[in-house]
Amino acid sequence: MINQNAIVESLNWRYATKKFDATKKINEQNWNTLAESLRLAPSSYGLQPWKFLVVQNRETLKKLTPLSWGQTQVEDCSHFVVFTTMAKMTEEHVKNFIQKTAKVRGQDPETLKGYQDMMIGDVVKGPRSEIAKWWAQRQSYIAMGFLMQTSALLQIDTCAMEGIDPAGYDDVLGLKGTGYETVAAVACGYRHPDDKYQTLKKVRFDTSDVIKFV
Amino acid sequence: MINQNAIVESLNWRYATKKFDATKKINEQNWNTLAESLRLAPSSYGLQPWKFLVVQNRETLKKLTPLSWGQTQVEDCSHFVVFTTMAKMTEEHVKNFIQKTAKVRGQDPETLKGYQDMMIGDVVKGPRSEIAKWWAQRQSYIAMGFLMQTSALLQIDTCAMEGIDPAGYDDVLGLKGTGYETVAAVACGYRHPDDKYQTLKKVRFDTSDVIKFV
Repeated sequence: MINQNAIVESLNWRYATKKFDATKKINEQNWNTLAESLRLAPSSYGLQPWKFLVVQNRETLKKLTPLSWGQTQVEDCSHFVVFTTMAKMTEEHVKNFIQKTAKVRGQDPETLKGYQDMMIGDVVKGPRSEIAKWWAQRQSYIAMGFLMQTSALLQIDTCAMEGIDPAGYDDVLGLKGTGYETVAAVACGYRHPDDKYQTLKKVRFDTSDVIKFV
Repeated sequence: MINQNAIVESLNWRYATKKFDATKKINEQNWNTLAESLRLAPSSYGLQPWKFLVVQNRETLKKLTPLSWGQTQVEDCSHFVVFTTMAKMTEEHVKNFIQKTAKVRGQDPETLKGYQDMMIGDVVKGPRSEIAKWWAQRQSYIAMGFLMQTSALLQIDTCAMEGIDPAGYDDVLGLKGTGYETVAAVACGYRHPDDKYQTLKKVRFDTSDVIKFV
């Protein structure tokens, strides 16, 4: 169990980092912890309708900057993680998930047929299929939360970026035809000492305004 | 800074709890830490387009159970948190946020006029206004991630529930006309020793399947 104060302190310590120190890189051990936080994030039915692209290629990063309002975080951070989600859910994806479930739990996939059909009847062919794109996007924001919170616990800075051109990102990252689309990105790394935003007070509504007991 | 192994262990320890021990309640200090995790969660522009309703009234909880496929978590958990988000973004909300910002940071609200107009021109009247409902929902899933990760760190169990009737919830919770709509719920509390799901192996795709270096 982890100290309560340390958790709240880390959440107050974090802020949307505007300027990263390009000389500081996240070490491998820390990165592995961040990657596990993404991988282990929960999602509806456990379907994980996402892929996380960590852009390392300098040329690619340079192409993404103008598609991100010229924000410097793209190139100056240590690990630039692009969140992509399924544009629509497919039977193939659900079946892959069932195969994985059967393998991990040592079950006969046939015994999971009902569960598979139920999911297909909802997110592929049923009521949720109409909103599957938005549904998948919101699942990925749980993973975004995990990535940002784990980062804060490890004193790694982040900046979640929605101010990007998702279609432009899809082009640069070669996502056309893959079934996955860019939704947002999270720059991870270390704040530059000059980033004035780190000294600004955090703005949140009062607890009584956003949390109601009913 | 917090131990890396402890973070990953907590993420492996957590699971979607199907059966809660109705006799165990989250104590006040722990709840305050969970509440701070919700309140401090980041959102696009910092707009916090959400309200979190903690349902304590037994009669209300009873009405929500049949709107949740009869799932027992609603009534057996300690704190049942309903996530509600703005159906569309309003000028009033953006202005409230600007007023709060000015107050917290000791600024003249007039100096924030450009920032206010920019946000209104995006989420209230601009390109994002068309998808504001989905945009607000996905922001709230960052907070959902924070709530679930903080819970795991404190060895508090959770179950995120999308399998609910949001419109039915809106009726029971009196949300009609408030501008806020139910999107999902998170049951928080303590697992029942009989919940067989706690012993099942966690199913996740391999790291190499979901995290790509490009």
